[in-house]
Amino acid sequence: MGSNASQATDALNEVIAWRDGHIVAIDQTLLPRELHLLHITTVDELVDAIVRLAVRGAPLLGAAGALGVALAVGQAGREGWDAERLDSEVKRIADARPTAVNLRREADAVAAVIPDGAPAVEAAARAILDTTVDVSIRLSERGAEYLTSERGGGPLTVHTHCNTGALACLGWGSALGIVRALHNRGALASVIVDETRPLLQGSRLTCWELDQLGIEHQLICDGAAPFLISRGMTDAVVVGADRVAANGDVANKIGTYSLALAARRAGIPFVVAVPESTIDAATPGGDQIPVEQRDSAEVTHVLGVPAAPPGTRALNYAFDITPADLVTAIVTEDRIIHPGT
Amino acid sequence: MGSNASQATDALNEVIAWRDGHIVAIDQTLLPRELHLLHITTVDELVDAIVRLAVRGAPLLGAAGALGVALAVGQAGREGWDAERLDSEVKRIADARPTAVNLRREADAVAAVIPDGAPAVEAAARAILDTTVDVSIRLSERGAEYLTSERGGGPLTVHTHCNTGALACLGWGSALGIVRALHNRGALASVIVDETRPLLQGSRLTCWELDQLGIEHQLICDGAAPFLISRGMTDAVVVGADRVAANGDVANKIGTYSLALAARRAGIPFVVAVPESTIDAATPGGDQIPVEQRDSAEVTHVLGVPAAPPGTRALNYAFDITPADLVTAIVTEDRIIHPGT
Repeated sequence: MGSNASQATDALNEVIAWRDGHIVAIDQTLLPRELHLLHITTVDELVDAIVRLAVRGAPLLGAAGALGVALAVGQAGREGWDAERLDSEVKRIADARPTAVNLRREADAVAAVIPDGAPAVEAAARAILDTTVDVSIRLSERGAEYLTSERGGGPLTVHTHCNTGALACLGWGSALGIVRALHNRGALASVIVDETRPLLQGSRLTCWELDQLGIEHQLICDGAAPFLISRGMTDAVVVGADRVAANGDVANKIGTYSLALAARRAGIPFVVAVPESTIDAATPGGDQIPVEQRDSAEVTHVLGVPAAPPGTRALNYAFDITPADLVTAIVTEDRIIHPGT
Repeated sequence: MGSNASQATDALNEVIAWRDGHIVAIDQTLLPRELHLLHITTVDELVDAIVRLAVRGAPLLGAAGALGVALAVGQAGREGWDAERLDSEVKRIADARPTAVNLRREADAVAAVIPDGAPAVEAAARAILDTTVDVSIRLSERGAEYLTSERGGGPLTVHTHCNTGALACLGWGSALGIVRALHNRGALASVIVDETRPLLQGSRLTCWELDQLGIEHQLICDGAAPFLISRGMTDAVVVGADRVAANGDVANKIGTYSLALAARRAGIPFVVAVPESTIDAATPGGDQIPVEQRDSAEVTHVLGVPAAPPGTRALNYAFDITPADLVTAIVTEDRIIHPGT
């Protein structure tokens, strides 16, 4: 392995970290072109990194929310904020993106420790990072076990969407963690990766991670996924989620719902891999999950290059909702849920 | 309307034409950035224009095939080809793309006139262009009639894929021709346009055509289509096709099948608009339709910019197959077929 590859594999083990009182994180907007570390020292910088998706992925947003509270507490000390200001800055972090439940949940969990002082806050945030890694590996192993026992026979071809690896989740990832666990067991043939427009997390991030891990993969355009599934080119669809409602409806990156429709028609499993923390008992069903709408320019432009005529209007929902009845299994670190049955 | 817009609207009436013994056609790879006319004087140039999608769309490929035979006959005269050479050059045009049935059909139809001499060949090719325009307008009116009677009530929002307007079909188009006919009747609210990766014919061409026609539209990423359909944001999906098999299975631009799955689940019509010439009685079902695979670079790059890490492998099927049972109606210039019933 060359030095670039070594650097990258190391990077997969430290996608976000707490160093000398600030947050260090990979700027995921620059991958695969450049592996650049952001040094985030203020709440403004963190919110900016989250909004522009330099830091993204539901569990990683949870980690960012946790570390963000530690960051806010440090900044409050330096700048003399009162409790009300600190509270509103923490809220700003928790609200930076509306769909992923982890961001708010972990920010709130760490914020509860603020009265115990800065060292306690730091310790709570670090503990959440450790737990996130541990949860990722447990759910990855459980998912690999489930798929090999369900599908049996030879090595599997897995179809996935967006990025759900270490870059999104720490540890091994969620859906991509299952891929990694299958690979470790010699039970993986190949991965089919949706490019995941508009922001191309599949092309840019998932292909990069799979490259680092030496895992065989092929990239496709999102619109091609249902056809490949219909032609028997994949054994299972495995995706992550940004929020799972109490009834099993799944909010995930836009484009996921079409995979579920195609998997059902083809009779292959549609599996959702999430930490327990992504299951939101307070949200009864998918209709109650807020779906973020983002800037039109992400659709009218690709990688910054205009594709449509100037002035073209676009709709840019960042997530879609897959109804529970299309979900074969939800795999978490603790259990396997079958909402569709 | 400014002079650019006037030029463009005129261009919609002359997407491909026969002028002074050669073919003039819009280079569709340069839209919407530039409205550039290709002057095609040899079979090599025509095959190149077809392969790189400067000239594309099933009915327009039929017109190109017809004019291509006239071009080949002219070149044969200038360069002293024998009958065998002429035959092989005509075959090269007919085979330039494998999925659209129109290209071969119209090339063969005009080639049958070769024994009658060059003027007869030119006349036959021109007649095919006239017929193509006439067919487009008839099927557009029939489709608009069908949709308004089926859906009733207020103006409709129509969801479409790829480009099926004048640029693809001459006249008004096929699916986009129905949109235009609805607009002319005051029965159209808006159009939702899939960007249509990998080559972005939706963003680049359909948005441009709708702009010229002053028709309200919004662009989306392909992966967002099923979600919007599930949320009731559209009244009908209307697409074209590159080939319809005898059993009603539909080959169309990759990404179409997911619209059919979503439309079925949402209970809205999935309508395919094609000239009769696109229905291929000789192909029993979708499994027998050859699906073109194109260069990986169309997937790993977007508008020429690399998106994935260097060396990433990709699968690039240009078309998918929608099974007949998901098709609510096939509208042609002559009839409405209901293969799904």
